[in-house]
Amino acid sequence: MFEEVYDVIVVGGGHAGAEAAAAAANMGSKTLLATMNLQTIGQMSCNPAMGGIAKGQIVREIDALGGYSGIITDKSAIQFKMLNKSKGPAMWSPRAQNDRMRFAEEWRLALESTPNVDFYQEMISGLLIEGNTVKGVRTSLGIDIKGKSVVLTNGTFLNGLIHIGNKQFGGGRAGEKAATGITEQLTDLGFESGRMKTGTPPRVDGRSLDYSKMIVQPGDVHPEKFSYLDTPILSQQRDCFMTHTSEMVHDVLRTGFDRSPMFNGRIKSIGPRYCPSIEDKINRFADKSSHQLFVEPEGWDTVEVYVNGFSTSLPEDIQFKALRSVVGFEKVKFFRPGYAIEYDYFPPTQLKHTLETKLLNNLYFAGQINGTTGYEEAASQGLMAGINAHLKINDRDSFILKRDEAYIGVLIDDLITKGTEEPYRMFTSRAEYRTLLRQDNADLRLTPMSHAIGLATDERLRRMEEKRKKSDAFIKFFKQTSVSPESINPILEEVDSALVKQSDKMFKVFSRPKVTMDHMMQLEAVSNFVNENNLGQEEMEQAEIQVKYAGYIQKEKSNADKLHRLENVKIPDNFDYSILKSLSFEAREKLQSIRPITISQASRISGVSPSDISVLLVYMGR
Amino acid sequence: MFEEVYDVIVVGGGHAGAEAAAAAANMGSKTLLATMNLQTIGQMSCNPAMGGIAKGQIVREIDALGGYSGIITDKSAIQFKMLNKSKGPAMWSPRAQNDRMRFAEEWRLALESTPNVDFYQEMISGLLIEGNTVKGVRTSLGIDIKGKSVVLTNGTFLNGLIHIGNKQFGGGRAGEKAATGITEQLTDLGFESGRMKTGTPPRVDGRSLDYSKMIVQPGDVHPEKFSYLDTPILSQQRDCFMTHTSEMVHDVLRTGFDRSPMFNGRIKSIGPRYCPSIEDKINRFADKSSHQLFVEPEGWDTVEVYVNGFSTSLPEDIQFKALRSVVGFEKVKFFRPGYAIEYDYFPPTQLKHTLETKLLNNLYFAGQINGTTGYEEAASQGLMAGINAHLKINDRDSFILKRDEAYIGVLIDDLITKGTEEPYRMFTSRAEYRTLLRQDNADLRLTPMSHAIGLATDERLRRMEEKRKKSDAFIKFFKQTSVSPESINPILEEVDSALVKQSDKMFKVFSRPKVTMDHMMQLEAVSNFVNENNLGQEEMEQAEIQVKYAGYIQKEKSNADKLHRLENVKIPDNFDYSILKSLSFEAREKLQSIRPITISQASRISGVSPSDISVLLVYMGR
Repeated sequence: MFEEVYDVIVVGGGHAGAEAAAAAANMGSKTLLATMNLQTIGQMSCNPAMGGIAKGQIVREIDALGGYSGIITDKSAIQFKMLNKSKGPAMWSPRAQNDRMRFAEEWRLALESTPNVDFYQEMISGLLIEGNTVKGVRTSLGIDIKGKSVVLTNGTFLNGLIHIGNKQFGGGRAGEKAATGITEQLTDLGFESGRMKTGTPPRVDGRSLDYSKMIVQPGDVHPEKFSYLDTPILSQQRDCFMTHTSEMVHDVLRTGFDRSPMFNGRIKSIGPRYCPSIEDKINRFADKSSHQLFVEPEGWDTVEVYVNGFSTSLPEDIQFKALRSVVGFEKVKFFRPGYAIEYDYFPPTQLKHTLETKLLNNLYFAGQINGTTGYEEAASQGLMAGINAHLKINDRDSFILKRDEAYIGVLIDDLITKGTEEPYRMFTSRAEYRTLLRQDNADLRLTPMSHAIGLATDERLRRMEEKRKKSDAFIKFFKQTSVSPESINPILEEVDSALVKQSDKMFKVFSRPKVTMDHMMQLEAVSNFVNENNLGQEEMEQAEIQVKYAGYIQKEKSNADKLHRLENVKIPDNFDYSILKSLSFEAREKLQSIRPITISQASRISGVSPSDISVLLVYMGR
Repeated sequence: MFEEVYDVIVVGGGHAGAEAAAAAANMGSKTLLATMNLQTIGQMSCNPAMGGIAKGQIVREIDALGGYSGIITDKSAIQFKMLNKSKGPAMWSPRAQNDRMRFAEEWRLALESTPNVDFYQEMISGLLIEGNTVKGVRTSLGIDIKGKSVVLTNGTFLNGLIHIGNKQFGGGRAGEKAATGITEQLTDLGFESGRMKTGTPPRVDGRSLDYSKMIVQPGDVHPEKFSYLDTPILSQQRDCFMTHTSEMVHDVLRTGFDRSPMFNGRIKSIGPRYCPSIEDKINRFADKSSHQLFVEPEGWDTVEVYVNGFSTSLPEDIQFKALRSVVGFEKVKFFRPGYAIEYDYFPPTQLKHTLETKLLNNLYFAGQINGTTGYEEAASQGLMAGINAHLKINDRDSFILKRDEAYIGVLIDDLITKGTEEPYRMFTSRAEYRTLLRQDNADLRLTPMSHAIGLATDERLRRMEEKRKKSDAFIKFFKQTSVSPESINPILEEVDSALVKQSDKMFKVFSRPKVTMDHMMQLEAVSNFVNENNLGQEEMEQAEIQVKYAGYIQKEKSNADKLHRLENVKIPDNFDYSILKSLSFEAREKLQSIRPITISQASRISGVSPSDISVLLVYMGR
């Protein structure tokens, strides 16, 4: 039935699988997307939103690299917010609420219009393996599909077990079957596997809520968007709402704790620390008498509502009673209860930077199978796995993003170097160079690299180059043009900043904290330059950020350069650490297991001390 | 969690369940739609089309009664055809191809905007019963939901078992779980259950087909629509295509017969005779060297294609090899193979005309659970079950359509009177009075009845009355207005019909076979009348049909009247047939089991002879 040998076979059609298939196919690989259900491609299994702090940056990076998540988010968005706009631009984080059905449909249609992607609906229950190289997959019907490489993106489906109170049953998601076979085969081959847990809140009927008792959460007045391409900007938006739990709600929840699979030991695996269940929150933060709940519509027209902040696996009667005690939810009706799900993952220290497994050639893992949580984390891994699967079978250099180049680089480096004991979520704090890794410059950082390997299109590169050219010219203008005291002092007075006594370069004045682009635009020379050069909002913002944060940016760049020197000291592939007797025992053991490829990576392994690094540097220096 | 006692609980969200919930809710019942997966409400499990011969009439009847299937079909249609337009109007049958995703989404949104419908996602695994009355349902989590009545519309999910070649596995549909518990509980209570089988063809990638080798099947040049309301008419359409199997294809298929679950005894239950699998077709019609295949797109934008006519449960490798031998399919790629599915049904002779079960009060069955096949058959049963569930709990008279009033009446009467040994499908030949049961007059037949019970809206009635008023006036005009030989003879000459020598009533001339409305419109008096009275296409067509088929219509009406006399002779509810010793043994047994409510119904039971009817008439006459 499948005579052809696919270049890349992607197992799973969620965020990771969809991006992996699109990337490999767009680079030229004959790609098969195999999934248990073709109707659920691009399903938002949990909340109907993309982006958020650090996550929004990842979506922008995916887009800059030529992935689809940004485009699909823009096409299906019902609300947009730039979070943290009051902080520095390193913290600005785009976030969108999405129409769940539209999001999935846009993904399906986007993949269908990607010529190299074929589709097949069936559970993949095993891998075809020859020696230590994967050669394809086997379906549950026993059909063998040959492939030069395989990307596994199984999400929560591998031996998925759903918990609600004392009840538990197999399932990959509510109402869907679990997947079996793959974990067992891989552990037989020597892979280490573990169990993780995640959860989701109840879905409720928006018609049963009293929004007048809640706080409206509108989108931005001037919504932006995710993609650097020409996607639509929202002309209308749907509101979200905020409410909160109370001591009364917590008391009700506590009455179910004896039947909580989280607390009575039934769930043994660890859930996402920063996306805890409501029972976890009231347990861990016993002094807090209230927690916020965000009431998010699931689409333009549907009445289904997602209760963000109320993830729970307490018994359904407790969930219901507790939610009815929440302000605005007095008459709530459930569409379905929340639940927890346990599933298999493979500790990601078993992977290379390319997301290829160390044990089996041409086998890649992406998404929750690597112990991460979040659509954005999953999608970016899928993209990188798809890219690297394509590159490897074409004998080309791998594509690895460094920690100072992208959040995606931080994510993957963290995963494979440090592993993770709990579902890994991205934060800005995980990035040492977050002033460099902004949402506004993901295209400047990544599009040229992606274009060079053949993924980002010429159009993407052209748009990026125009943006860079124009913003650079604007920055140069600020550096070269002087402003007189008569012109600038009224502005400085307005913002309560010290007046200048003689003409100075605009760059210097603009660098002052309270002076904004709006102020500078009051200068005729500036507004003339903008008009003459036809500068858009994006280019002006880019210039502003680069002027105002020039110091921070420069500092991080030089720190990154130092790191690069360590980065350039490679460790040979099969290096035998046992010959270095002066390494600590712990360091030797960790290095042997994780097998870093550079001294820099070695330095980030917990248990590898600076003195261990010195030993390595001395040896590798030879 | 469910404190409220629902008026009507509908189990299942397919065509039957969705119509049942909408009807009950629109009549005023607090209704719960419980389904395993809220994402799959209104799913088209098999072909992406609604209507067809006899089925299109049913959709028009559903619409006339105030159901949603017609509206949703119109909103999601990608192609429309009026089948059999060359035959008499009793045979005209509307059929639409649909966008599968849009169809499901429209259903979901339509139900969400029906205020009395609540939703709950979970498998229903049992019924709450007190005495011999149903009191609600129990979910697989053990949640009890109370309801005054329950409508079961489980489709193919009850103990669903999927077959592909030698392989078999549990499932309600491809990629979905089977439902368990209900059959076991009902058979314990004395219900008789059986197994039926149905099947579906492979879904394939439209990009892999060579349409240039096939015959294009466009929609109608002037597409019509299903709903009598103001739904949109298609302004553009997607083409279907036709190709055919060959001896070579059949030879390939035969190589898999030894592994066919249809032929090796693995599938014991009976499939739909008029929707046979391709292996069945080449087996039963061994002399036919070719069968038509219709290549149907699954939506406006998707590349997924439905291969109508190629339903099969042969091994997937045989399916693939055979389809590759079909003209235009030489390079076909599969999205998923075809399969057969066996599922539980309950012989429908266990039901009353209202679709309530005889054994348990307030429990209704609709759709495939009654042994039918087809979206339209299912939807219409759901509608009638929803209506009658509502009426009964409000102590109102039941709503039963007679055989001369609607195809729906024929369908239900056939089911409960004759039962069915194989999946029951509607045909025009099943209706004794098909000249009365036309697609053009479903509103005239049914909207007043539905309005009287509180389902069809005032707007529906108003539109129907306007149509009737205008068409009646037009008919009256033809009856009263004379036409001179000078005016009419040129037309009669044109159509090669005998000329008239003196003035005659227009009605009489118009009755002649070859004279059409277009001809009549050439007469100034006619076109003036049309313009002055602002007659639309629909009213003109209605008048034309009633003029030209007046004889047939009158004849069927008088036949139906005869039937009504028998219909009026009721048989008491608990009549004891054993006291009528002159009944044949077979008649007594069948009557005792089926318990017809009128002599007319008794007469349609196979095994009840005219002499048995005479015995009953004599007795009931007393």
